Formats: sequence, structure tokens, C-alpha cells
Amino acid sequence: MTIDKQVFSFGGGVADGDGSMAAVLGGKGAGLAEMTALGIPVPPGFTISTAACRLYFELGNTISESLKAEVGVSLSKLEEAVGKKLGGSEDPLLVSVRSGSPMSMPGMMDTVLNLGLNDQTVEAIAAKSQNPRFAYDTYRRFIQMYSNVVLGVDIAEFEHHLENVKLEVGVWQDNELDVDALKSVVRRYHECVRQHSGQAFPQDPLLQLWGAVEAVFASWNNPRAKYYRQLNNIPANMGTAVTVQAMVFGNMGADCATGVAFTRNPSTGAKEFYGEYLPNAQGEDVVAGIRTPMSLTNTGDGLDGESLESTMPEAFAQLLEIQKNLELHYRDMQDIEFTIERGHVWMLQTRRGKRTAVAAVRVAVEMVDEGLIDKREAVLRVEPISLDQLLHPTLDPSAAKTVLATGLPASPGAVSGRIVFNAVDAEDAAARGEDVILVRVETSPEDIKGMSAARGILTARGGMTSHAAVVARGMGRCCVAGCGAVRIDEHARTMAVSGHTLTDRDVLTLDGSTGEVILGRVAQIEANTSGEFARLMTWADTFRTLGVRANADNPRDAKRARRLGAEGVGLCRTEHMFFEGDRITSMRRLILARTDEERATALGSLEPMQQADFEGIFTAMLGLPVTIRLLDPPLHEFLPQHASDVELLVKLTGITKADIELAAESLHETNPMLGHRGCRLGISFPAIYEMQTRAIFRAAVAVNAEHPGQVKPEVMIPLVGHPEELRRLRALVLKVAHEVLETATTSLDFLVGTMIELPRACCVADRIAEHADFFSFGTNDLTQTTFGISRDDAASFMRVYLDQGIYEQDPFVSIDQDGLGVLMRMGVEKGRAQNAKLKIGICGEHGGEPASVRFCQSLGLDYVSCSPFRVPIARLAAAHAALTLPAEPK
Amino acid sequence: MTIDKQVFSFGGGVADGDGSMAAVLGGKGAGLAEMTALGIPVPPGFTISTAACRLYFELGNTISESLKAEVGVSLSKLEEAVGKKLGGSEDPLLVSVRSGSPMSMPGMMDTVLNLGLNDQTVEAIAAKSQNPRFAYDTYRRFIQMYSNVVLGVDIAEFEHHLENVKLEVGVWQDNELDVDALKSVVRRYHECVRQHSGQAFPQDPLLQLWGAVEAVFASWNNPRAKYYRQLNNIPANMGTAVTVQAMVFGNMGADCATGVAFTRNPSTGAKEFYGEYLPNAQGEDVVAGIRTPMSLTNTGDGLDGESLESTMPEAFAQLLEIQKNLELHYRDMQDIEFTIERGHVWMLQTRRGKRTAVAAVRVAVEMVDEGLIDKREAVLRVEPISLDQLLHPTLDPSAAKTVLATGLPASPGAVSGRIVFNAVDAEDAAARGEDVILVRVETSPEDIKGMSAARGILTARGGMTSHAAVVARGMGRCCVAGCGAVRIDEHARTMAVSGHTLTDRDVLTLDGSTGEVILGRVAQIEANTSGEFARLMTWADTFRTLGVRANADNPRDAKRARRLGAEGVGLCRTEHMFFEGDRITSMRRLILARTDEERATALGSLEPMQQADFEGIFTAMLGLPVTIRLLDPPLHEFLPQHASDVELLVKLTGITKADIELAAESLHETNPMLGHRGCRLGISFPAIYEMQTRAIFRAAVAVNAEHPGQVKPEVMIPLVGHPEELRRLRALVLKVAHEVLETATTSLDFLVGTMIELPRACCVADRIAEHADFFSFGTNDLTQTTFGISRDDAASFMRVYLDQGIYEQDPFVSIDQDGLGVLMRMGVEKGRAQNAKLKIGICGEHGGEPASVRFCQSLGLDYVSCSPFRVPIARLAAAHAALTLPAEPK
Repeated sequence: MTIDKQVFSFGGGVADGDGSMAAVLGGKGAGLAEMTALGIPVPPGFTISTAACRLYFELGNTISESLKAEVGVSLSKLEEAVGKKLGGSEDPLLVSVRSGSPMSMPGMMDTVLNLGLNDQTVEAIAAKSQNPRFAYDTYRRFIQMYSNVVLGVDIAEFEHHLENVKLEVGVWQDNELDVDALKSVVRRYHECVRQHSGQAFPQDPLLQLWGAVEAVFASWNNPRAKYYRQLNNIPANMGTAVTVQAMVFGNMGADCATGVAFTRNPSTGAKEFYGEYLPNAQGEDVVAGIRTPMSLTNTGDGLDGESLESTMPEAFAQLLEIQKNLELHYRDMQDIEFTIERGHVWMLQTRRGKRTAVAAVRVAVEMVDEGLIDKREAVLRVEPISLDQLLHPTLDPSAAKTVLATGLPASPGAVSGRIVFNAVDAEDAAARGEDVILVRVETSPEDIKGMSAARGILTARGGMTSHAAVVARGMGRCCVAGCGAVRIDEHARTMAVSGHTLTDRDVLTLDGSTGEVILGRVAQIEANTSGEFARLMTWADTFRTLGVRANADNPRDAKRARRLGAEGVGLCRTEHMFFEGDRITSMRRLILARTDEERATALGSLEPMQQADFEGIFTAMLGLPVTIRLLDPPLHEFLPQHASDVELLVKLTGITKADIELAAESLHETNPMLGHRGCRLGISFPAIYEMQTRAIFRAAVAVNAEHPGQVKPEVMIPLVGHPEELRRLRALVLKVAHEVLETATTSLDFLVGTMIELPRACCVADRIAEHADFFSFGTNDLTQTTFGISRDDAASFMRVYLDQGIYEQDPFVSIDQDGLGVLMRMGVEKGRAQNAKLKIGICGEHGGEPASVRFCQSLGLDYVSCSPFRVPIARLAAAHAALTLPAEPK
Repeated sequence: MTIDKQVFSFGGGVADGDGSMAAVLGGKGAGLAEMTALGIPVPPGFTISTAACRLYFELGNTISESLKAEVGVSLSKLEEAVGKKLGGSEDPLLVSVRSGSPMSMPGMMDTVLNLGLNDQTVEAIAAKSQNPRFAYDTYRRFIQMYSNVVLGVDIAEFEHHLENVKLEVGVWQDNELDVDALKSVVRRYHECVRQHSGQAFPQDPLLQLWGAVEAVFASWNNPRAKYYRQLNNIPANMGTAVTVQAMVFGNMGADCATGVAFTRNPSTGAKEFYGEYLPNAQGEDVVAGIRTPMSLTNTGDGLDGESLESTMPEAFAQLLEIQKNLELHYRDMQDIEFTIERGHVWMLQTRRGKRTAVAAVRVAVEMVDEGLIDKREAVLRVEPISLDQLLHPTLDPSAAKTVLATGLPASPGAVSGRIVFNAVDAEDAAARGEDVILVRVETSPEDIKGMSAARGILTARGGMTSHAAVVARGMGRCCVAGCGAVRIDEHARTMAVSGHTLTDRDVLTLDGSTGEVILGRVAQIEANTSGEFARLMTWADTFRTLGVRANADNPRDAKRARRLGAEGVGLCRTEHMFFEGDRITSMRRLILARTDEERATALGSLEPMQQADFEGIFTAMLGLPVTIRLLDPPLHEFLPQHASDVELLVKLTGITKADIELAAESLHETNPMLGHRGCRLGISFPAIYEMQTRAIFRAAVAVNAEHPGQVKPEVMIPLVGHPEELRRLRALVLKVAHEVLETATTSLDFLVGTMIELPRACCVADRIAEHADFFSFGTNDLTQTTFGISRDDAASFMRVYLDQGIYEQDPFVSIDQDGLGVLMRMGVEKGRAQNAKLKIGICGEHGGEPASVRFCQSLGLDYVSCSPFRVPIARLAAAHAALTLPAEPK
């Protein structure tokens, strides 16, 4: 076995690696190498590859000899480049040790700064910097961070000592502690380490280094990193790189600072340099959100005097130049980290900037206008799923609202929900289907499951780049951050704001676009999907080859779907109509009918209602196909569940309670999902399907008379498993259709097809295709039967399966390509082999999920159909699939 | 299009067709052609082919010109051969018109005898025969039969007139009517036809002939024929042949007779000429069971004076010679029909004789001993499914019993059940799972559904070849026929026998091997499967390549299975053990445990019970593999259902009723079939699987210590859908196994494998096979998920599906080869591709169904596993499959 190079040096304008090597160097290491080669000031260092990490795991968590040797060489090179030695007595080298994943996992893994300090080197640093306070402050930070990350000592133990010293010397802020106080802190920290780790704090800088490297390796598998990977579909076997880099200090005095910035506004996408900094601080202070940072630029907000632009104009000018070059070089918005040490700007990181969906769309479109990228790249720059953020309602501006406070507009959207004060409560409530707002003083990586479960997040502390803000934007959750007016007692589960004391029984509304925190619920209006969004979607439509339809059960949804770009209705669930208004009573009369006459009367009263609905949908979708599924659910779903409903039905119909109960009992099923439903109803009770077919064609004829050739009904038979079912029901539909069409004055084209939602239907798809004009994969039911899992009952084990990684993802969210995909492919191949003109689509909820859309493209489907709000996502996902998949082998 | 020859003549030692042409000529036509060619006396005639019937259906039920022409030619030939003319005024030809299906469908289709009679020809016949009584009796029979079959007049209308005339002239029996009375009957019949069919009885013999031919064609599609085909898996598209044959008369006087016979005893298989006849009668009189016929041979039963052997010794000798030759020619037991006209024997039919399973086995084995057939043919001669009759218990001879009466031992077996008096009641009761005995004066083809539904059949009238007897033997139902001591009032639903009056609330026991009718239930003992049966099974075992195991959940079943030839246990359902005795309380304690300690205690108390069971099964199966499935059903199945059980549990455990109800509620599932069960339990609650594994290996180690190398456990994980489930649970099993095996002194081989019972498992079988030593197809659940049909809920539509022919057969009875078969094949191919040594079996209920066994052989499975009683069926079916399928392409 030959071992690839495991350590890559960079510094002084020369780097072993480059920006394309994120898989080897991690995103951070690749960015540092690329910047170094560009001549941008980067502290020198070296990156240990992800392959070295994987080897470490393979060797049972052991550092290989080869790695030790390579690190030795690169360390010497680094020492030579900066003219300092690790553990040196004169001018000792301090380094940072940072993780770097091939795919961004912000804050999920561990970092150690200021490594190389010990009881001797701290004195050397104090002497060399002529700043003993700085030296001891740095030392105590190092002990704290190293002991936590490497030795596993709880950070709270150190905070406790720090607070004690502050009390003893009578100061409030860390930076008010003088050197003696800091020495006292260091002494207490040493004692604390001995006590909690059972060993003295390691004094050998080389031991420190290897301890930190191993801790970073190990942090790849910490629970929050695992969960983050699961949430973001990041493979578990990549491993992390480790970058060891000479320290530069933002905390050496007033001519020092540290900050983070974006080359464009990550929230709006506006082309403006946008960032925050803290003077005299180390990077962690910004990200942790402990002190609220200041703007880099003058924004006219009354605080311009504090901006970097005002306080350190030369450094600011350097930074401005660097960020401009970086964006031009990468042709994408960058997220950068920098430190200013004694007026000199050092770049510590550059990476693709995470952005809101609004920003992603605007940046992509404007970069096309600026000539930086082409339309193809612009379309590929926007993650389809992120559009979800754009497509949900915002607050109705005309609605009255009680604004309690305004925080930072950290992640857009508008949400209402009950207040919860911790992540566990958020998860529990979400599991019950409840909308909640997670309210926290600040969030930490431990909170991410709760943040994902909540509809929105409100924090009292932290800026636009705080943990809460970054994570919420990534997740597409609405977030208002740093809302200082809110005082939160997480223990008592109360929050006080503007004279109100709210508990976890109260409801809040958040506007993530304005930062407003509002009492109670506020009316919302639909998203505005014009402007750059509309331009991008037009480009996407030119690239995609897959049709996109919507699932719509009524004219309102059909209209909305068409506005969002749907090219027809892929699934109209007729039974949803039966629940509206007093129709349910007619439906119940039908089910409870004792004579053919009663049955006919009930059907007769349902038919005009159905017809009116279909007319509305056909009108909303003029010129586009509308797929209508005949009755699917088992009849018992329509019977009243509650005593009061039963009584009402008795009153309305005169049917006795005993008869209703008898019917309910006789219709009861052990496994209704696998029971008397779908086309089985059509076979047993043809009169229902005949009525529905008549309503469809009467509606079609009526609308088509006004708009000749503009009505395109597609009648869909559900739950077919045997070709004979479809043959018979197709004959029934054709018979009724022709009866109705004899009365028509304009010609009408229509199709008859079937859902493919049973494994058997895939197995005999060729024979089913003999009787079908189209197939529509019902992947919800197909997933249930293929896995043998009832979605209604899966909660009890699905969480275990996902948490333990048995399932990589919930198969009800994204198509299970390994298993279900085999059946779908068989269905497509057999169906098309029999009937080359067969139209094939999908109408399960997967139809709006990007990975599933991509899979549908790879299968050669004709269209996907999804909920109206998901239509733009599906359109964009289809464009991505068309642009990135090899051409179909049709 | 060239039209094949449609009409095949036979007569005078020459025939157009031969015995191999049953597909073209029907069984009857082929037999007549073959007998003619053999020189056996057969009345001449011609057979219209099944192709002509199919053409008739294709032309929309129209006789083609080509058929008319061919029939014309053959009719002339026939007239020439016999020297009579149809409708001739001197010596008119009369013919029979009979159906003839390619596969035997006894009594399912229509027949017309004596065709050619009209008001003129009857006189000619009277003159020629010098027997006017015969002529008019034949005419009235013809009018009655023709009008019923062709014109659709209810037979009861004629019976009514016949009874009236009998009353008027004061006689009891039909054959006591004199010629004037018969003329009066004919007149009344003519009037009756006019009244009920709206037309005069057709006088033109050629019109009569075509009417009869069309009626026979049409009878292919009568409901009882359709049902019979469905029941016997006979294709619906074959059509029937029609044989037109010169009439011979068994009813011309005392030197005439008609009868049916078997070349061996169809009930026991004994090599004895066995049959019945009626003097001075037509064939229908025997089959209809209206008069009780007499034995052909002397049997020493006190009635030898009435036998054909005694009364017509010469004709008997002819017949004896003919039957001997036929058996030698066909090398199989024949079922023949003959008529003796004025001392001359005419053969009307020969066909393979239907026989009981006992007879089939004995005949096959004895024919090998006689050198008639080889062992291969003997094995193929016995229908596997027929063994069912041999394998069920008989009455315990030591049990006390009240014999009410003794009838004919028409079909063997011993059954107990509640009395029902009509077929509908039998079907209804059977649908509820109730065992019933169908009691009828006599049965008719309309009763066959009820006969199939009943456990046994008792008739008051009819012989060993009556409808009831023939059909019951075919179906494998126990039957006691012609039990004259029983007086039945079907309307009042009572039967009187030996001073008892029984109603449909009483229970009877029938012994079909002795003809005993017994009051109440009688203890039963296992079938004797030695003698010829054992020899045949030994031969079968030498031919088959498929292993046969049994599903056995306890030592008792395991022992029985081994006695019946099982080569191991293919499925031991551990959960069945949990319901026995007070184990269920321990299981409930486990489910209701609130602490780990309570859980551990409950598991601890279950473990020794499980271990003891496993020891018993291993001991019963020494030297053979035993596949044990870990816990499969959802936990709620173990909770008490009834209030009294809940109270008992409260008393036994001290757990409150509220807690039990809470647990039941939290475990409730909407679709338990698709819920938290199978390996999902093993993943969620590993302690249960660990306990079961420990019990298995402790038992194995204990028994193996006594019998080194004789214990072969195979641990099976249920409901695996994802390879990761099996990987984890296999690791769990191996861990526990190795812990136990460390204590063992003898080495023990074992396997770990999985059920394949979800469509997804078939789709990813290659990846599952990475972690499996064996697969066992669970075709019950695989059928449920592949079809999306819950067996528990299917009743509401399955009957409609089967009645309407949407499903050709119940997929829960015989493997759905078209759909499920695709998945099974995929599972086998993918599994073996990954792991060439993978053992593959099946343990669903299909494992004992012959067509499914054959399919398993075609898939190349290693073994089938079925219920103990089905083991011999599976062994024989496997032999058939091995002998008749092309060699495996392994």
C-alpha cells in the first residue's frame, strides 16, 4: 500500500494544495491554500488530510508513524517560515488547530487556539509582546479550550473560577482583569484540570499538538456532528482534515481586532460588503455571540463611529480589497474570517457564503447581470429546497399587530407558534404536530434538533452570524436573533418583554425579515415570487425537461398552483371534496343506504357538487391536463367519529344510532391501509365510480363548450394491483364518458390511467399498461407497502431507525432509491416496453423533494406532481437534474 | 385463415381421431375414438371439436357455415353406418348429444338423449321395436330433457305433470306407467312446452340437433361449470366438444340395462371390477341416483342374485373382457359407462377413473408391482393435494360412539360438525370458520359450493357413483351416501334417524370409510401412513430434489412432522410459546414493566420456558436443522383483550387496570400488520431478542452435549427490509451465541438468516445476503404487502374478486406467480449473486400447496416448509416438480 501525501504546507505565497482540494484538505484547508497562492496574507501552516483522519480511524484511533514523520517535516518548515519554535524559550510559536470538513459543518467539530503555551512560553510571550496581560489572558483561554476539547473537562468548571476571580477583584468584564488576576485564574485553572482530568495540564507543546489533532479527529464522530451530517445528507465516512496554523492575535490591544464578513449581504443578497467585528478579541468571541459585535461598514444607523471603516480605515481598506478579489476569484459570494494584528490584516478562512434563499436568488441573478456567471450556473447556484423559504406566507401588512420588541432579522419568513424554552420541548411539541417558537438566551450546537423541530427561533443574545442565525438560515427556519429587550428565564419558562410576562402557554409571531417579535398570531399573506425569483425560475424552466404539476383538490389550490408555475394538476383527490360543508352528510347517507333507491338519492345529491368542483378546477387549469383520481379511501373514513357527529347525523337523516354503529362495525378493518379501498371500491360499488366519472365528464363538457379544446381530463384509477381491475374499470369509465360525450358539441380528448402504488403493480406493469394511457407513481402508498411500514404507526420506531442511522433518511420524505427505486424502474421499463406512448408521472409527496425529482428524471418520467408551494422547488430541482444528469438513455 | 377439421367420425372399428386428442375431441370423444379403433363395441357417431365451439363463441354464438357442412357429411356417414335416417319414417335414427370437455367436468354441462324423436318417429320406433311403451317413455324423456336443456323449461314443470298422471292411474313408479298413460304424459308435456317456452316442441330432428349442439356449447359457460373450472384450475377458454352418437337403449326391456363401472375399486383401490347397473333403464337413471342401483358383481352381501353377474352372465362376461382390455391398454384404472341393449354390450365412455387418495396410492403401487407402470409414473399418478385425505385423523376405535345409521362409505375420512340442510347455510357457516356437515336427500350440481364449504356430506339417496359421492371424492370431502335410514325434511331443517330428531343445532360425526353416521363428536386419531403410502412416498423422495421441512412451534408438532417425513423445522414461531399456560402472564409483565429491573425479571422468567421448548424441538429433530424465528408480532397482541383477563392480570401482577389500559392505548396501531413488529422489535427492544437467542443456544448446547453434532439451530430474523437491520441483529445474535458457546464442551454449527417477506427485501436481497446464511420466503406477509391486501380484511372484496374472475385464484392459497413470483425470483437471483452458498427456502402457508411447491422448484429453492400434515403433500409435489420441470438452470 502506498500512502498518499498526508500533510500539505502553505505560507509565503506558496501552497502544496489548492482550492479544488476540499475533499482532501477540508473546505478550510483548501481555502487557505488557494488564498496563499493568490498572494493574500494568510498565516503559514499546514493541513493534515482527511485521508490521514480515515487512516487514524482504520488503525483503531492511532496516529500512524508516517503521519508523525510528515507533521514533523511540515512543523519544521512552519517554524522556519515564521522564525519561531514551538515551545521555544525566546519567541515561541503558537498555533491554532482547526477541523476542516470537506462539506461545511459549521461549529460541529472542535478547534484549539493558542496551542504551544505553557508555564515557560507564556513568560516568553509576555516578554516578547511586552504585554503580560495579553500573554496570561491567552494562556487562560488556551487552558480552558484545550482542557475542554482534549481532556473533556466541562467548560462550566472554568467559568466558575473565572467568575470567582472577577468577584474577588471586583470587575464585571473578562477584559477588565489585570495580569495578576489572570495569573490567579491560570493557577486555579491548573488545579481545576488536575482535579477533573486526573492529570496535570500538559506542558510539552508537541504532546499538546498531538492531543489536539486527535481530539479534532475524534470530534468527527461527536453526536452533534453525526446529527448534522444526517440532517444535511453528508456521508459519514469522509473524515475531517486538521489545519495547524501560526496564531495571529486580534487580542493584543486596540490596534487588533477579529471579525467575519460576507462579500454580499447573506440575508438579502444585496451587493454590499457586510460583516461584524470585535476589537481586541479572538475569533471565538464573535462566533460565540458573547459580546455583540459591531458593523464593519458605515450603515447610517447612528453607530457609524464604531465601525471598522471608521476606527481602522487602513485595515478596512486592505480588507475591502481582499474581499473584492476573493469574490472575483471564486465568482461567488464568500464568507471570510479575518484577524487584524497590530494593524495588519490576516485572512483565516474563505468559503462559499451560506445565504438565505432570497439572497441566493438575488446573488445568482445579479452575478449573471454582472457577467460573472452564466444562466446555467445561476440556476445551479440556488438549492431547490431553499426556495421553501421564499414560498411561504409573510405577515399581512394590513393586519393589526402588537410588536413587543425588535431583534436582528436573522433568517426570513413569518411564523406563529406557542413558546417553548428548550430544545426538548420543541422536539416533543413538533412530534405532536404543534407549531412552536423556540426562545433561548442564545443557542448552541446541542440545540440543533430543537431548532429544526421549531417553526421559528428567537434569541436574546448574539448577532447575525451567531450560531442561532447561521443555523436557522441553513435550515430555512425563521429567526430573530439578539433581541436584547427580551429577558428570558429558561428555568422558570417565562420571558419578560415590554411589560408582558409570557409563559409556554402563550403564542408569539416572529417576522424574520424585519426582526419583529409580535404578541399572538398575525394574519399572513402569500410570498411574493416576482422579480429575481421569477427571472431565475424562467431560466430554470428553459433547462428542465421534466414536467411539473401540482396536487390540487379544489379550484383555490389549482389557481395557486398555476400561479406558482404548475403545468397541470397531477392529482386531484376527489374524496377531499366529500368532507366539505354538508357534502359529508350526503356521503354518509350513501354509505348507510339500505336500499338502491336511498343509494341513488345520495349519489344524485353528491354528483352536482362534484361537477361544480371539477368545473372550477378545469377552469383554473384551462389548456393544461387535470388528473382526477376516483374515490380511494375506505368508506369507514367518512363515518362520524365523535358522539356529537353521530347525533347530528341521526338528527339530519333519521338513521338510527344503532344502524350507524352497525355500519361502522361492519366497515371496521384491522389494517385499513390494506383494506377495502381504492379500485376495490370501484369493483364492489361501481355506482360510486360511475357517478364520479359522470361528474367529471359533465364538468369537462360544460367548460370545454366555453373554451373548446382547453379541457384535458385524465381519469385515474387508484390502487390497481392486477391488470383485470384496470381493464374493467377503464371500461366503466369509457362507457360513462361516451354516454356524456354524446351530448357534447365540442370534441374533448381525455386519458384513462392508473396509480402505480402497489409492489404488484410494478411487477405486472407491462400487463397493466395494456389498459392505461398513463401511470402515476403513488410513492406514499408504494413506500408503505414496499417497506411494510404504516406511516401512521411508524413514529414508534422510525425515530430510532433514523437516530441510529439504520435508515439514512426517512423514506416518506425522500424516495428510497435503493429499494423502492428498483420497483419504480421495473414499473417504468415494463410499462414503456408494452406501451411506448405511456405517460408516466409521480404524485406522491416525494414529487416536490429535490433528490426524488432528480431520481424521477433519471428514470425518464414525464412529470412530477407536488403540493402547490413545492412547485417552484420541483421546477428548480428538475432544472438541476436536467443540467447535471447524463442524458436520458430513452 | 384455414379452418382445421371440425368434425371427427367414429364407428365400425374406424375413427378419425384417437385417445390422445382430448384437447380437440374432449375426454369423451377421444375415449370413444380410441375404443372404436381398439375394436371395442361403440355406437357410431361423430364428435364436433372444441375448436368449433371456440369459433362459435368468436362468431358471437353463431354456427359457422363450415361446421354446418362438416356435420352434414358426418351425419350422412353415421346414417349410412347404422342404416337409419334421422327423422326417417321407417327406422329413424335417434342420437345422443353430449358435451365433452378436454378436462373432466362431470355433470357440469348439458346432455340430450333420444334426439330425433317427434310425433311421427315415435310411432316408427314403437313399430320397429314392437314396444310402444318403450317408444313413448323414451319420447317423454326426450321432451323433458330437450325442453329443459335447450328451451330452458324448468324440469319441475314436467315432474308435476308426470306425478299427476301417476296419481290419476294410481301407480307409484315411472316404469309402472302403461303406454296410454305415457301418451297422456307426452300430450301434457307438449302443452307444457308451449306454455313455458312460448313455442311448440320442435318436430324437425335437424332443428333439434342444432338446438342441442348450441345448448351444449352454451353450457360451457353456465355458472356451475364456471365455478367448477375455478375450483379445479381449468382454463376458461378451452371450450367443449360435442359428441353426437347413435342411441343404444338400456330401457327396451328385461334384456337391457345400463351401468357404470370402474376397473378397480375407486374407493379402496383394490383390484376388483367394481360397478353398478340398473336393469331396463337409461344412463341418467344411474347417475341421478333416483333409483338405487345394484352391484355388477357378486359380493356376498346377500344381494348376489340381483347382480349383473347373476342376471346377465353373458353380457357380464363381455363387459369383464372389455374392462380388462381397457385397463391394459390405458395402463390405468378406467371409469366406464355401458349400455346393454337386448343382451349386447355397448361402451359409451371410458376415462381415467377418479379415485380416492387411498385408491390412487394403492392402484399406483400395485400397478408397479404388476409391471404395468414404472415408479416414476406411479409417483406422477397420485395428485399431491389428494393426500390430504390420507393425512387427516380417523375415528378413535376405542372411543364410545352412538351409531345412528350406516350408509355407503362414499368418500373416506372422519369429520364432525354441526348439521346444515342446504348449501347456502354451509357456505355461510364455513365463512365464519365453523365446521358443518351438509345433510341432503341427494345433491345436485347446484350444491357444489356448499359441498366444498362443508367438512362432510351425508345423503339419504344415491349410490357410490351418485353426484354426491363422485364430487365428494374429487374434493377430498368425507361423504356417506345413500343412507336410507335417514329421513330429511330440508324445509323444516330436521332429520329423523333411529328415533332421534336432529336439527341444525345438533352435531354429527361421519366416518367416510365405514359409512357410519354417529351422534355428536367422536375422538379421532392420526392417519395411518404406512403400507403402499409409505412405499410411494419413498419413491417420491428418491425423485425430488427440493427439501421439505415443517412449520412446528412445539415438540409435539415437531415429532409429528418428523413422522410425516419432514427433514427439519423450517419455521418455529417462538411467540406461539408465549401464549401457553402462565407464560402469557410473564410476557404481559414484560410489556408492562416500568423499570429495567421489572423488565429483567420478566425476561428472566420467560427464558427457562423458552429454553425447555427449544430443547424439546431440538430433541425431536436430532440431526436435522431447526429454524427458529425470533419474536415477530406486535406487542399489543399479547395484552389481554377481555375485561376478565384484565382483571386476572391485575390480580396476578398488582399492575393497575389504568396502567394496562394506558399500555394498550400506547401500543395501539392503525395498521398493526405494517407496524412495530418483527425485527423492528429487535432493534427497539434488544433485550427480548437477546433473551430468545440465549434460550436457543443454551438449549442447543444442552441437547448437543448428549448428542454431539446432532443439533443444528438456524436463527431467523423476521421482517427485514434493510440490510442494516440484519447486520445489527446478526451481530447481536452472534454476540449472545458466542457467550453461550464458550461454556459448551461440544462444537455446534449454526446459521443466522432472515425471512424475506417484504417487497423491499427482495429489491435489496443482494445487500441483505451479505449478512445472511439463509433466506426463508415468508409468502404470507409478502403476499399481503405485494398486493396491499390485509388477509384479515380481504373477505369483503376477495369473494367478489374470485367470483368475478378478477383473481384466478386466492393468492393466499397458491403463490401469485405473475406478481409475487417476480419479486421472489429477484430475491433469489440477487441473493445468490451475492452469496452463492445462500440456502433459500419458503415457510409461508404456500409451502404445502402443490402449484406453489412446483414454482419453488422452478426458482431453484433449497427447501419448502409447511404444516406437518402437509409434509407428504409437499414431498410428493416436489417429486412431481422434479420429474416434470426442465432441469434447473442453476
